[in-house]
Amino acid sequence: MDERWIPARVGDAVTDVDTPALILDLDRFEGNLARLMSAVQGRGIRVRPHAKSHKCVEIARRQMAAGAIGICCQKTSEAEAFLAGGITDVLISNEVVGDRKTARLAQLAARYPGAKVGVCVDDPRAVAQLARACEHARTQLDVYIELDVGHNRAGVTDIGAVVALGQAITSQASLVLRGLHAYFGNAQHLRSIAERRQAIAAATATAQAAQRALIAAGLRCDVITGAGTGTFMLEAASGVYTEIQPGSYVMMDIDYAKNEQELAWPAFEQSLMILTTVMSRRKDAQHDRATLDAGLKSFSTDSGPALPAFAGWQVRGVSDEHTVLERNGAGPDLLLGGKALLIPGHIDPTVNLHDWIVAVRGDRVEAVWPIEARGAIF
Amino acid sequence: MDERWIPARVGDAVTDVDTPALILDLDRFEGNLARLMSAVQGRGIRVRPHAKSHKCVEIARRQMAAGAIGICCQKTSEAEAFLAGGITDVLISNEVVGDRKTARLAQLAARYPGAKVGVCVDDPRAVAQLARACEHARTQLDVYIELDVGHNRAGVTDIGAVVALGQAITSQASLVLRGLHAYFGNAQHLRSIAERRQAIAAATATAQAAQRALIAAGLRCDVITGAGTGTFMLEAASGVYTEIQPGSYVMMDIDYAKNEQELAWPAFEQSLMILTTVMSRRKDAQHDRATLDAGLKSFSTDSGPALPAFAGWQVRGVSDEHTVLERNGAGPDLLLGGKALLIPGHIDPTVNLHDWIVAVRGDRVEAVWPIEARGAIF
Repeated sequence: MDERWIPARVGDAVTDVDTPALILDLDRFEGNLARLMSAVQGRGIRVRPHAKSHKCVEIARRQMAAGAIGICCQKTSEAEAFLAGGITDVLISNEVVGDRKTARLAQLAARYPGAKVGVCVDDPRAVAQLARACEHARTQLDVYIELDVGHNRAGVTDIGAVVALGQAITSQASLVLRGLHAYFGNAQHLRSIAERRQAIAAATATAQAAQRALIAAGLRCDVITGAGTGTFMLEAASGVYTEIQPGSYVMMDIDYAKNEQELAWPAFEQSLMILTTVMSRRKDAQHDRATLDAGLKSFSTDSGPALPAFAGWQVRGVSDEHTVLERNGAGPDLLLGGKALLIPGHIDPTVNLHDWIVAVRGDRVEAVWPIEARGAIF
Repeated sequence: MDERWIPARVGDAVTDVDTPALILDLDRFEGNLARLMSAVQGRGIRVRPHAKSHKCVEIARRQMAAGAIGICCQKTSEAEAFLAGGITDVLISNEVVGDRKTARLAQLAARYPGAKVGVCVDDPRAVAQLARACEHARTQLDVYIELDVGHNRAGVTDIGAVVALGQAITSQASLVLRGLHAYFGNAQHLRSIAERRQAIAAATATAQAAQRALIAAGLRCDVITGAGTGTFMLEAASGVYTEIQPGSYVMMDIDYAKNEQELAWPAFEQSLMILTTVMSRRKDAQHDRATLDAGLKSFSTDSGPALPAFAGWQVRGVSDEHTVLERNGAGPDLLLGGKALLIPGHIDPTVNLHDWIVAVRGDRVEAVWPIEARGAIF
């Protein structure tokens, strides 16, 4: 994070923010925080938002203040940034494998003896590595068995393997078996409500069978954690999941906005945008073209490019540092040097391209938050 | 750049490097440096490599040592990183527009009075902004008129507009008209030789006409700069271009490797790879699956995902921090905790995701270079 490259100061007008910059609309952001918590209130479900979406300690603090019990991370270096920022309950919802990586995780947990640090496993060799690392660092880790409930990315499917992992974890004094990690990632982006209902019903049945097998083997399974922004209402209502992990809900993106919405579900608003400057403009017989100063290095395109937050313009091309818009209907004119807002296609890898979130209320900058875990891939 | 997250130390075995990490094969890298310079030797063409590909001061220094006359950047903040690193001739091959941005550029040039700093323009309003900023900072800038030679992203096409811009620049005591920026980006990725030849022939004719018009109007046009890794041999042979700007050639990627190659052209080798760890492994009746610990936050997918650098495996899915490989033929086994190399699809936005380049010779780490201009989007 380079202080020289900070795009705004508190009190700046939004139109004076340097570009490209991530702009967080605080009213919408706070609304999203409240919508999530009130949607699951009274259901006895714990909320552990996924911080890989925002990578920002200040957002995690606000999620905790709104009632979250902790956060998820995807990497040890990410967890490090949040523990350093005072978040004391962090689950790495991912496998950590190999002596170098397990040693680093155990050393991190040892540095924060008052914090809860959790990690997922899907292989007994990783259990042994984690235990050795914890013994060496004189610390303990919470461990969750990753169950593959349909995502087919990591995790075990076989009930026998779940029980064997449970026994392996329990046999280690330095590891505490907490339960199951049962996240169905692909289900988040199934467009129809019916498909998502079906996917999470199947995931719930698988998780429940694994939990019963652990308990039947005399093992504990107090926590079943999973769910994202596309399905969390289903896991929350399942009676089986004890914890949900939505991440994108605070900021949203084009991909999530494509999901068919249940009327009874909270309607999250797009709170994060990318502010750009019109750096080249052509208006002649052939073209009505505006070129913006943000491209592949300011937003990811894995779910399509960032799109204009206004009518009348479409994306014709994206390169490293440019997005070319061409007029395709009625909408605002774009002036050379003027600002234009884009909506990100996929929030998580887009935020990871920036060092700062410029938090605005109305047309004024209220705060500039560092993205401490940007680039925390280790 | 966070020193805590450095993936390797000098002398480490490559297999001990923490992952995900960018691995630069120094033998191939040095070969690519030499191949470029010898390919254009004796043609009277100057080489100004584009540093937006690597964003690394040490690589720029080596390009200069091999005979480059300076570098290109795409943003003022990028130029700042290279000037701070001792590169004293930097062309921002892009427009810089608006009072805040032009002020910053002029202040940067003023901080390095011994350096040459250039910028592109395609609008007289930007010329006026640059001049005001330079007067205020008591400095001068080299200015290039961006000519749209087919890329249709920025730049002017009309010869009258070229001459008007030339006059506007020349009328400002703080601006020095250097010539034309005539880069045909899309042509770099045209697959067939014939298409690239045709595109650059047309670009050359356009550039020559613009140059003649400037000279006829009593203006100077000493430099015509452009070209990338896919076409630079054509610009070098054009007799019109005086300077080429290849960037990807030092590291290469899957997209460039898809181009049909002329036999007489230098055959650049893939020198940059992404080292990953197998973090989950499934081998059963249904699956032979290896999940790697690198995803959308370790490589960009705008030109397709990173692909295995070894046979027998294909990419089945990519998410934020995972790439799922599935076996599809004969090839090495992948073991849990073992390492796997991926070839990036598109080098520029991939390098921008990392803080460090791990430079290796054979199986040993020879150096670890910071990527100083990572995230320099302003």
